[in-house]
Parts: sequence; structure tokens; C-alpha cells
Amino acid sequence: MGDYSIGVDLGGTNLRIAAVDSDSKLLEKLTLGAEVSRGRDFVITEMCKAIESLRTKYQSSGTLLGIGIGVPGFIDMKAGMVMDSPNLPDWKSYPVRDEIERCLNTKVILENDANSAAMGEMWLGAGRQFEHLAMYTLGTGVGGGLIFNGSLWHGMTGMAGELGHFNVYADGHACGCGSRGCLEQYASATAVVRMAREAIARGESTELESLSREEGQFTSRSIYNLAVQGEPAAKRVFENVGRALGIGVGSMVNALNLPIYVIGGGVSSAWDAFAPAMFEEMKFRSSIYALTSPDRIGHEKGTIVTRAMLGSDAGLYGAARLPMLEGFSQTEKGRH
Amino acid sequence: MGDYSIGVDLGGTNLRIAAVDSDSKLLEKLTLGAEVSRGRDFVITEMCKAIESLRTKYQSSGTLLGIGIGVPGFIDMKAGMVMDSPNLPDWKSYPVRDEIERCLNTKVILENDANSAAMGEMWLGAGRQFEHLAMYTLGTGVGGGLIFNGSLWHGMTGMAGELGHFNVYADGHACGCGSRGCLEQYASATAVVRMAREAIARGESTELESLSREEGQFTSRSIYNLAVQGEPAAKRVFENVGRALGIGVGSMVNALNLPIYVIGGGVSSAWDAFAPAMFEEMKFRSSIYALTSPDRIGHEKGTIVTRAMLGSDAGLYGAARLPMLEGFSQTEKGRH
Repeated sequence: MGDYSIGVDLGGTNLRIAAVDSDSKLLEKLTLGAEVSRGRDFVITEMCKAIESLRTKYQSSGTLLGIGIGVPGFIDMKAGMVMDSPNLPDWKSYPVRDEIERCLNTKVILENDANSAAMGEMWLGAGRQFEHLAMYTLGTGVGGGLIFNGSLWHGMTGMAGELGHFNVYADGHACGCGSRGCLEQYASATAVVRMAREAIARGESTELESLSREEGQFTSRSIYNLAVQGEPAAKRVFENVGRALGIGVGSMVNALNLPIYVIGGGVSSAWDAFAPAMFEEMKFRSSIYALTSPDRIGHEKGTIVTRAMLGSDAGLYGAARLPMLEGFSQTEKGRH
Repeated sequence: MGDYSIGVDLGGTNLRIAAVDSDSKLLEKLTLGAEVSRGRDFVITEMCKAIESLRTKYQSSGTLLGIGIGVPGFIDMKAGMVMDSPNLPDWKSYPVRDEIERCLNTKVILENDANSAAMGEMWLGAGRQFEHLAMYTLGTGVGGGLIFNGSLWHGMTGMAGELGHFNVYADGHACGCGSRGCLEQYASATAVVRMAREAIARGESTELESLSREEGQFTSRSIYNLAVQGEPAAKRVFENVGRALGIGVGSMVNALNLPIYVIGGGVSSAWDAFAPAMFEEMKFRSSIYALTSPDRIGHEKGTIVTRAMLGSDAGLYGAARLPMLEGFSQTEKGRH
């Protein structure tokens, strides 16, 4: 084994930590409960303890390049702080990176979780052969990450890649961000459940209604299971997911003309239920996609829109990748 | 005078050619009728003759760095060809760049006209202090150009920057691209006239109706003149322009978090009629814009959305800039 780094993925449920070497070999993966409710200091202490135990274990066999930490929320890259995160309210304006660097005495990169997932998919997943990539993570919300020339695009204030807040229906469903009709309101797990409830309210499906009465069973996954069994209202829910994605990704193709768009996150496992509507909508919305779709000009040259490959490990691997990249330093790209 | 280059802007009406030195001093500007209807070969011959005359005039006083040519349409950067252009149908799949290079015996860059305008505004206009920029050109259609790290972003096949085909109203007006509700259908000069006609058809305005009866007078400019006089239906037309721009630019802010978005083209002279609705919509659509708007965090740090400064010269200056840029070579950035 040569050099290695440690990636951290702080999710809503789990805190996952992995040591990965620069040949992309997983050395070890730890999964702890996130226990975010016990507060920032508790989580950071647990995280540091776990990282320390991995470092002790592997210190004789390689050099630790650094630690990458993916967290949900807006990150101030320059300050190494969480600027805003609905899931981590008490992390705001606290010097997380510096605190963890001090505690572990090694370089730390704090990164948005969807950006980490984009980096993971580019390193080891669906985007392996590419230098430019857009990633959509369809989870409780919809996140996004953009990679240009092999580097994450952070934008002026580190907020770039909020692809879940692309407007798809100007007068659509109200979004937590204050707008209406954001992609997140149609392509997240939360949106799948809401759209299924709307179908029930319209009296469209006794099957969905029965499912909704089973405690803890009314999830995007169980709604998907109904859809694959052919239940029409459940199928329409995922067609709506596909249409919204087609509008959002189609506009991105028109703007950026990237070689690959990767769809990940939990809802992406319903790929076969939403992808046909998504591709149909993309061809309608984007003449660039219509001109460059793989079925027209071949998979090698075409615009690829595809499922993520790493599942829930994308963010973990991506976080581990960050310290390996050349010029790794957590400084904001200035506005100039 | 030191080194200089020659920029060409081939528009629907005029063929304009300028010699500009590397200190951005305009040496001379020629304006010829475009006469596109006389065919490709005629236009190219006229263009080469005019360029040759400028070169002869300035050859003793400096080195010609090359020639940049901005044309409407999709450009294949690698081949130096127009792939598709509604305005230049007989230019398609013809080796324009190589032909002009052969004719003039100097380096030529063929570029999309909105990309050229983006480069012009970055060099000498509203984007002077920035390295990253998005440009919208509101003309007969709506074009766009993106600059990251000082370089035009062409995307995988040279088609990037089609910001006029961002979807803003999923079920909106049919667009020439095949989709519905593209930004171009609400923010171009063509769209202004159409929306004014729709207002007349709804019986909303006798003033607009009178204007529409005056031969050759029913233009986006004269509709704007009615709007600034306070005519309600004409004002609403430009509010619609602003709303659509706010939705489109707002999604771009969420995706890219760029420091500056420049609005140019003929319709941008109606700035005061559409900008209030645009800014209102942007704050609603983009929480990133709301967090980073200049009235919140100061002009120096904020996200700037502003009028272009160079008017119809942006594309001409931008085309002249292209041969001056480091690493100037017309090779496509590969997909890898």
C-alpha cells in the first residue's frame, strides 16, 4: 500500500468513514450512527476518534494525504465552515475544518456532500472516462455537483451546483428555498411521496391509498414497487419525476454541453420507472441533446445521461479523493 | 502600435470588421452590408478583401496576430465549420475557417457570435474585472456565452452556451428549437413583438393596436417607447421579459454561482422596463442570488446582473480578442 486518505460522509442517518489508498483500494470502512441530534461537538469528537483509530492502524504502511469530509449544506470553502445546513443547524459559522485539523493535526477539506458524490462518480463510478461531469443526487432533497476539467466547480461563494433548485415549473409546487417548481419538488424521495398523496387525494388509486395506510410503508421505494407492478397512478408519479428531470437536465445540456450527466441518490434506483419519460423530455427540450444523443451518434461520442454506479458510497469515495487531487488546498477561487 | 488582430462580426444586416491592437485601441472599423442572400462565397470574398485592405494598411506598424470571426449558429470548433445556422443555410458543412485561412494566409478562429460578445464584454465591457461570466444576447433570438477562468466554455461539441433555450415555462410558447417555453420565446425582440400582438388580440391596448397599424413601426423599440410612456399593456410585455429572464438567470445562479451575468443585445436597451421584474424574480427563484445580491452584501462581493456596455460592438471586439488569447488554437476540448 502507498499513500492513502480518509473520507467522511456525514449523512442524516449514518456517519461513514473510509480509508482508501491512491490506487482506489478500500482499506477499511466504518459506519457509525450520525447522532446529529447530540450536537456538533459530539459528532466531531466521534468523527475524530474514528479517524484516529484508522490512522493508527494504517500509519506504518503508508502516508496519510489528508481527510475529506462531505456534509450536507452550503460550505464556505475559504473559511472551512458550514454556512447553512438545514440538517446541521448548530454547525453554522463554526470553524469545523480548522477544529478538525487541530484535533487530528493533518489537512482537512470540508466539502458539500453532492459535490463529494460527483467527485466519487468521476473517480470510480459512471464518470471514470470523463473530465467534465454534472451529478444529480435524488435523495430527501435533490443535490448537485459540477466538475469541469477534473475539478469541482464551486462558483464565487462556494454555492454552485444547486441543481435541485433549477426551476422546472414556474408556477409549480412551493419549495423550501422560497421559490416554486424547483426540480427538487418533483425528483426527490419527498416529492415522490407527495405526488403519490396528491394522486390519492384526486381519487386516482386505491392501491396507493392502501399502501399509505400501512405504517412506515409509504416511501418512494414502496411506491416504486407499485409502479413496476404496473399500477398506473404510481407509474405516473415516476413519469413526473422523469419529465421534471428531462426539463432540468435538458436546460443544463443547452447551457453546458457536458459529455456526461450522472443521476444518483436513493431515487435513482427507480431508474427504469422514470428514465423513459426523462429521455423523451430531454429530446423535446434540448435540440443539442437530440443532436448528440447516443442513439443518434453512438455511445462513444454522444451526450451520456446515466445512473450513478457507486450508490451510497459515491460521497464517501469522493471525499477520500479530495486530498489526493493536485493543488489540494481549501482556498476559494476568487471572483477575479 | 504593437501587435494587433482583426475581428469580424457577421450579423443579419451588417458585416463589420475591425482592427484592434492588443492594448484594446481600435485602429479602424469597417461596416459593409452583409448581403448574406448573395451566398456564402460572395460574403467570404468580400470579407477577405476588406480584411486584406486593413492588413495592407497596418502591416508596417505591427504584427497581425490572427483573425477572429463571429457568426450566428453552432460552430464545430475542431473542423472550423458552421454546423447549423438558420441565418447562413449555405454555410453548413463548408470548411469556412480553412478557406479563409488559405485565402489570407493567417490564423483564423471561427466562433459563435454570442460567445464573441461574451469575450468582448469580458475584455472591454461590463465584465472587465472578472474571470468568469455568463452573457445573454437579447436580439432577434436569445444567444448566450459562458466564460470560465478567462476561457470560453465550448462544451463537448462546441454547442455550449445556448442560454436562450433554457426552459422557463414548461408549457409555454412553441420555440423554433422544437421545445416550448424557451427563454428566447419571452426575452427576444421577436418575443416582445409577439407578446404585444397577444395583448392586442386580448383587447388590452388601443395604443399598441394603433402602433401595430403603422407600417414598419411595430418593433420592440417602439413598444418599449410606449412602455416608458406608461402604457400598461406595453409595460406588462417588458415585465414578462423580466420575469422570464429572472427565471432563467436565477437557475443559472443556482447552478453556477458566477460573479457576473451580462445582459446585452438590442432588447437590453429596454433595461429599465424589464430589470425590476427580473431582479424581483431572481430573488424569488434563487436563494443563492437572494443571499448574494449586491444590495445585501455590497457591490464588490455580490452577484452582479448588469447591462452590457459595448452595445453592438461586443461581438466585434470579442472576435478581435480571440487571436490574442494565450494558447489560441482552434482545437476542440475533447470529451476526456
